[in-house]
Amino acid sequence: MGIVHNIKNMPLARKLGAFVALSEIEHTVLEGLHKRRRTFCAGRDLVHQGQSGQAAYILVSGWACSYKILMNGHRQIVDFQIPGDFLGLRSVLLKLSDHSVEPISDIEVTEVNVSDLLEAFAETPRLAAAVLWAVSRDEAMVVEHLVDIGRRNAAERMAHFLLELGARLSLVGLGSKAGYACPLSQYLLADALGLSSIHVNRVLRKLRETGMLTFREGYVAFDNYEQLIEFAEFDPVYLDQAGPLLP
Amino acid sequence: MGIVHNIKNMPLARKLGAFVALSEIEHTVLEGLHKRRRTFCAGRDLVHQGQSGQAAYILVSGWACSYKILMNGHRQIVDFQIPGDFLGLRSVLLKLSDHSVEPISDIEVTEVNVSDLLEAFAETPRLAAAVLWAVSRDEAMVVEHLVDIGRRNAAERMAHFLLELGARLSLVGLGSKAGYACPLSQYLLADALGLSSIHVNRVLRKLRETGMLTFREGYVAFDNYEQLIEFAEFDPVYLDQAGPLLP
Repeated sequence: MGIVHNIKNMPLARKLGAFVALSEIEHTVLEGLHKRRRTFCAGRDLVHQGQSGQAAYILVSGWACSYKILMNGHRQIVDFQIPGDFLGLRSVLLKLSDHSVEPISDIEVTEVNVSDLLEAFAETPRLAAAVLWAVSRDEAMVVEHLVDIGRRNAAERMAHFLLELGARLSLVGLGSKAGYACPLSQYLLADALGLSSIHVNRVLRKLRETGMLTFREGYVAFDNYEQLIEFAEFDPVYLDQAGPLLP
Repeated sequence: MGIVHNIKNMPLARKLGAFVALSEIEHTVLEGLHKRRRTFCAGRDLVHQGQSGQAAYILVSGWACSYKILMNGHRQIVDFQIPGDFLGLRSVLLKLSDHSVEPISDIEVTEVNVSDLLEAFAETPRLAAAVLWAVSRDEAMVVEHLVDIGRRNAAERMAHFLLELGARLSLVGLGSKAGYACPLSQYLLADALGLSSIHVNRVLRKLRETGMLTFREGYVAFDNYEQLIEFAEFDPVYLDQAGPLLP
């Protein structure tokens, strides 16, 4: 029972639990996916754009970012990953990875490959549906970002982005309406939001001065959560974490 | 054998076959997903943004588009769906649909719900992996579009978009390097590419005059496929359709 208790507190189990009420069997199968533990240092890519035969990982602790190098050499951050997220799941399903993944902090992961997933799906098809849900939710986030461009100004985009991260972190027990620990530098924020780092600095100052949000010393504090939500027009429905759909 | 033969020629089976070499059993399970046939007329939405309890569909014939209505009332087309694509799969997994789906032509679909998928996954977990692949590929396309914005000019974006559609259609037997039948109006192209319809018209004329592409009377003709690929910097690796990964 000790093992089962442990897995229930793991970020991926907490996250998938938002879609499927996981049974003991499903927790045990999830536990089985957490066998090959590995650690990676900050800055050392673990998934490589354009390469084949990549493994996928479940992020257990720490933060990572997925990015693409554009033809002009610039880097576009597609998304950040937090505990409970898959890293490079697309890379293990597609023959060549369409993106790279870099740890932002030192991270702890467990490695999974296609046959691990197939075995887990064979044992419990509900888990397959839950993983499909997680991938669909990731897609919904990218769609939201795509639609976002040109619809919100820099301050609104920053506010929306930090609220989205807060909601995702809350789901896995790493954030609240008060705020969350956040290792992202202004350079990373700039690469993700398509802003210069000077612009990022100016926008964060503006949000602080209006009393809505303070991002300082690795901590995002929501100083006025309700006002911030209104300002960013943040509607978290696309994150779909209001409780399990499948009983 | 007649039934199995039929399903092998269906667009979804052809598409998933690019990821998994489907066995007779898997073809039969896929066949089982094609029970509840329905038709929808052009322009009549079958998935509704913000609503719950939506069904998902497999598109058997015809074209559709997924879109979001923005806060300012404008509509942003996220993607077009062709035969073999899921419609609203995210809507059936997420509690509220984050987008709408509208048929562009009269379409034929089969309705699937979460329990249909769970049953199918229970019978063959390889099918779960194949559906996960299809969703991952959709996500890779949205990521490609996200990264695209600001990196290509209007003509390059149009060329890239029409090449991508051509590659997707080829996979399900509805297109070739010569071209494909395409029901998209200039208004739809405009909503998808973030251009005015006058701009779309100008860009298509330019592509025709340079001898690369003619889009006329519902047909996209690749007049110079190689040159067009170079012009658009189209690298179809993210579409991942070079043959099954799982034997």
